[in-house]
Amino acid sequence: MALTPFIASLRPNSCNFALQKYLSGMYRTITCGALRIADKGKTVTLAGWVQTIRKFGSITFVDLRDRYGITQLVFDEKETQKLESENVGREFVLQATGSVRERSNKNKNIPTGEIEIEIHSFKVLNPSVTPPFTIQDDTDGGEDLRMKYRYLDLRRNVLRKNLELRYSVTRATRNYLHSHNFIEIETPYLIKSTPEGARDFVVPSRMNAHEFYALPQSPQTFKQLLMVSGFDRYYQIVKCFRDEDLRADRQPEFTQIDCEMSFVEQEDILQTFEGLIKSILKDVKGIDLKEPLQRMSFADAMWNYGNDKPDIRFEMLVKNLKTESEIHLDALKGSSFGVFEQAETILAISVPGAADYSRKQTDELTDWVRRPQIGMAGLAYIKYHEDGSLKSSIDKFFSPDKLIQFADFCGSKKGDLILILAGKEEKTRKAISELRLFMGDRLGLRDNSIFKLLWVTDFPLFEYEEENNRWVARHHPFTSPKPEDIDTMIHNSPVITDKEHYLKHPFAAIKANAYDMVMNGNEIGGGSIRIHQKDLQKKMFEALAISDEEANEKFGFLMNAFQYGAPPHGGIAFGLDRVCAILGGSESIRDFIAFPKNNNGRDMMIDAPSPIEDKQLKELSLALGEIN
Amino acid sequence: MALTPFIASLRPNSCNFALQKYLSGMYRTITCGALRIADKGKTVTLAGWVQTIRKFGSITFVDLRDRYGITQLVFDEKETQKLESENVGREFVLQATGSVRERSNKNKNIPTGEIEIEIHSFKVLNPSVTPPFTIQDDTDGGEDLRMKYRYLDLRRNVLRKNLELRYSVTRATRNYLHSHNFIEIETPYLIKSTPEGARDFVVPSRMNAHEFYALPQSPQTFKQLLMVSGFDRYYQIVKCFRDEDLRADRQPEFTQIDCEMSFVEQEDILQTFEGLIKSILKDVKGIDLKEPLQRMSFADAMWNYGNDKPDIRFEMLVKNLKTESEIHLDALKGSSFGVFEQAETILAISVPGAADYSRKQTDELTDWVRRPQIGMAGLAYIKYHEDGSLKSSIDKFFSPDKLIQFADFCGSKKGDLILILAGKEEKTRKAISELRLFMGDRLGLRDNSIFKLLWVTDFPLFEYEEENNRWVARHHPFTSPKPEDIDTMIHNSPVITDKEHYLKHPFAAIKANAYDMVMNGNEIGGGSIRIHQKDLQKKMFEALAISDEEANEKFGFLMNAFQYGAPPHGGIAFGLDRVCAILGGSESIRDFIAFPKNNNGRDMMIDAPSPIEDKQLKELSLALGEIN
Repeated sequence: MALTPFIASLRPNSCNFALQKYLSGMYRTITCGALRIADKGKTVTLAGWVQTIRKFGSITFVDLRDRYGITQLVFDEKETQKLESENVGREFVLQATGSVRERSNKNKNIPTGEIEIEIHSFKVLNPSVTPPFTIQDDTDGGEDLRMKYRYLDLRRNVLRKNLELRYSVTRATRNYLHSHNFIEIETPYLIKSTPEGARDFVVPSRMNAHEFYALPQSPQTFKQLLMVSGFDRYYQIVKCFRDEDLRADRQPEFTQIDCEMSFVEQEDILQTFEGLIKSILKDVKGIDLKEPLQRMSFADAMWNYGNDKPDIRFEMLVKNLKTESEIHLDALKGSSFGVFEQAETILAISVPGAADYSRKQTDELTDWVRRPQIGMAGLAYIKYHEDGSLKSSIDKFFSPDKLIQFADFCGSKKGDLILILAGKEEKTRKAISELRLFMGDRLGLRDNSIFKLLWVTDFPLFEYEEENNRWVARHHPFTSPKPEDIDTMIHNSPVITDKEHYLKHPFAAIKANAYDMVMNGNEIGGGSIRIHQKDLQKKMFEALAISDEEANEKFGFLMNAFQYGAPPHGGIAFGLDRVCAILGGSESIRDFIAFPKNNNGRDMMIDAPSPIEDKQLKELSLALGEIN
Repeated sequence: MALTPFIASLRPNSCNFALQKYLSGMYRTITCGALRIADKGKTVTLAGWVQTIRKFGSITFVDLRDRYGITQLVFDEKETQKLESENVGREFVLQATGSVRERSNKNKNIPTGEIEIEIHSFKVLNPSVTPPFTIQDDTDGGEDLRMKYRYLDLRRNVLRKNLELRYSVTRATRNYLHSHNFIEIETPYLIKSTPEGARDFVVPSRMNAHEFYALPQSPQTFKQLLMVSGFDRYYQIVKCFRDEDLRADRQPEFTQIDCEMSFVEQEDILQTFEGLIKSILKDVKGIDLKEPLQRMSFADAMWNYGNDKPDIRFEMLVKNLKTESEIHLDALKGSSFGVFEQAETILAISVPGAADYSRKQTDELTDWVRRPQIGMAGLAYIKYHEDGSLKSSIDKFFSPDKLIQFADFCGSKKGDLILILAGKEEKTRKAISELRLFMGDRLGLRDNSIFKLLWVTDFPLFEYEEENNRWVARHHPFTSPKPEDIDTMIHNSPVITDKEHYLKHPFAAIKANAYDMVMNGNEIGGGSIRIHQKDLQKKMFEALAISDEEANEKFGFLMNAFQYGAPPHGGIAFGLDRVCAILGGSESIRDFIAFPKNNNGRDMMIDAPSPIEDKQLKELSLALGEIN
């Protein structure tokens, strides 16, 4: 068989320079990101990928790329001929030896930009066919193509840096938690399916026919058991699985920083994990947050931002002009404007410096709130001009006097544009929250290089379920009430006699010992102090109308464990993918996962999932059923 | 409703000392492992579990345990009465405040043994029912019971220390690899099923009906793709899954330290990961291995130890008296002993200082080799007494002169017992290897506190498959041959014309660029340099009689990726569970996994796997099939 020069060169008896290197097991003496002007005159060997290849007359410039950077190689006439005879092109893998010299044309944008390598000899370690898209910051590849060739997309700077950032986040996390006496313990991936919560991925067992494992949605039960075992500070960076219909920012497998502590109260947890996120920001972004994290009650978040994960990079607080129970703005009383009269809720924001929006611009905003995703009927506005005059879409119904009352109530300044939404409570609150974020974006107030963090606390312990006229757990049935609310829980019956006014039931006011950490308007972590007391847990099940039998069936082995001396404990879990995306200034977690799945849960690169062989199904005692 | 005193004490308006602590969010001022004589006089608050409770007259001693140690508490008459009224017993969770004082009766076995705490007040944080077994080093619980109550078993010192050791191994691993420029990258858990290798666990996809993901047996393909992407030093501590029938030391889910490097030859890998294991030994066990790891060829390991993972904590080398092709010991020539005459292979070991074994003892050894697991017909022995005389089970067939030749050939010294096995090559080699280990155990030569490491290298690239008269890959089809064997592979046809003498075919002599790391007779890691050259890969497929079509179907997307400039690369994977077990001086990996499964793949604690609901099956478009 005729050998290509390539394979021939691998024979031990060949003795060109590059081969010697190969046999000595050393492909390179230095990386492509390391050389500086101080290295002038050194002889070096580099190995990497051809990023660009440019011919100038009889000489050739090649930018050679590896994980560490890019170095410019210069090939003289003879070596250029060799480049051409081997058809060297983009993404070829080269090993090249030469001497470091100063560049005449310096490139200040890259650390190696002051030098170049005058090549003495080189070798093609591997050729490349033409890649399906350019391996550059601004690639010409569409998303589907790049997902299919993910291994090529990962060569691009931006994705490489994302994965490096992810690694530095996990490294910072481990270092901080280690220094705080946490121990990482692996919990199992093949566990038991529970019909609670989200949908499980299941794994049929061959050895136990017709039985299934489930992949964990979180290691919640196991970390609580580890507390019962006495490992008082546990953490794990761990994959979790949820078989949900996917949105753009969800993945069927995702990674949590999962933590639990014993002998702690909420304050200990907040302190400890405030420390964690500060440590991450310091190690990864060089940002030294000195102040304690802001804390905000769930109620304040809902009132002032319209949601429980407020973006506090900018103010523009939501003003509640009218709520279901009360009219807060006197100017509204006795108005002839039917829309406001009939509305359950009226909410407003005051957009700084937008009073000079044109009719076209306000119309655009109206269209925006009317989109199905927002679903409002319309938008009212008041322009509070710099000269103190007011111009409004509701001039017909409110005198200038009254409009000034609006502006005062909203804390508006001259030059502000007041935007007002009216409608059903929940929908309107959601809409004003979205509108606030939209305006924040428009005004450039949501700078991705700024990181604003806060704790949201004092969540309600229960939510009212109208259908069955009963209470359900907002988090899960193991979340503890606040110590000061335990009395209320113990001394009142959970039965709701007046459905209309369920909010007046004492249980509606009970707060959970639970907390979320929010960064730039995203919930990045959440947790709670757990109930560790049998009596209180029993009370909780009563409150949720869960019978002893049902409790035993659903939570049996954890309840069992709790009989043997469970310590007071609580914990938190952070969404690693989300933390990385925010720190990386991106909206999409997918860009921070090496091999993500698309919105149909498919890995486009390896083409999974896929049919399996009949033999495999038979071994599992399974059959294909009717397509659901 | 009447409150237990316990819940009542949680109310914020109560104000005993312990409750104040609770509300201030601080359950303890120090752990149970920290106090020393220098702390005498301090007032401290501890929280932990009652390990033991002993009454002496009117006072009571309690050993309080947490993750960090044990501290002795002394309760005076009044506090003892309170202990009794609250029925405090083993495994109750207490919070106790008191002052540190010197013990009269010091305990030198524990770090806190010089002090005790004179209790001022205490609180039961949680009671405990009587545990099903004692939480002590020598527990009275059987394995099944302890597996069911794993969360209690994990309270025992020995298991807690095992998990701490495991954490220190992963910590040392990460630190070493980080300092060597490795980056940890998470690869997916929901991948594609391949009929190659061991059996996959599969995960039905709901969104893609009748299609399945597989859980990874290892991230092999993904780490090679990451090399194509340019991440030249990757690692991951990662769960892997194999649906195999389980032996005592196998688990369906296990953890690998998975690594891959680019631009390296075998020597770089050996150096790098020799450094890793030394770093682990240093950080975890305080052992500073200075010498380079021994290296042994596969052939030498098989000849001298009878297997490819030799335990080199002791010598007792296997001597090959006669092999299929040759009689090595002249004394055997023309003997009248039919067993030896007819045997394909005769192998011996020389057991130091065992010449004075009694008839009963040698009979026991004979029984041992006759057990079905070993399956030999019998055992011959020669006692080489201290006085130079020889006594043997084969006296009838060999003169004293000849027996001396046996002893000399085996390198035996006076006082040695020579044990000889004869039979079919493979079986006899396996048997002598087992016998050697058995005798090593008997003689106390396999000390679990000593760690002996070596590399086994130069494995054959191919194995002969008699059934189809062809070559199969010993590792996998991506393992590279040694550079010096590439010629042989290229210039010879893989066709085997003389089945009888397949060993004479040039391919039988081709060595793989593969390596195993062996510790104390266990393979703890293994890997290879991969083929990165398309031409050579094609040759490999030809050698394995894999058609282009088949290659494409089975390895398509990896082969595809390799067209776009794959760098030379190779890697290794370590079995973390096994590494931990050996470092912990144990035979069983189960003791080093927090929540292991039993031999039927069941988690006895959570009772998984289990049936799932019909609704779940329907959603997955699946049906239960005939039981296999």
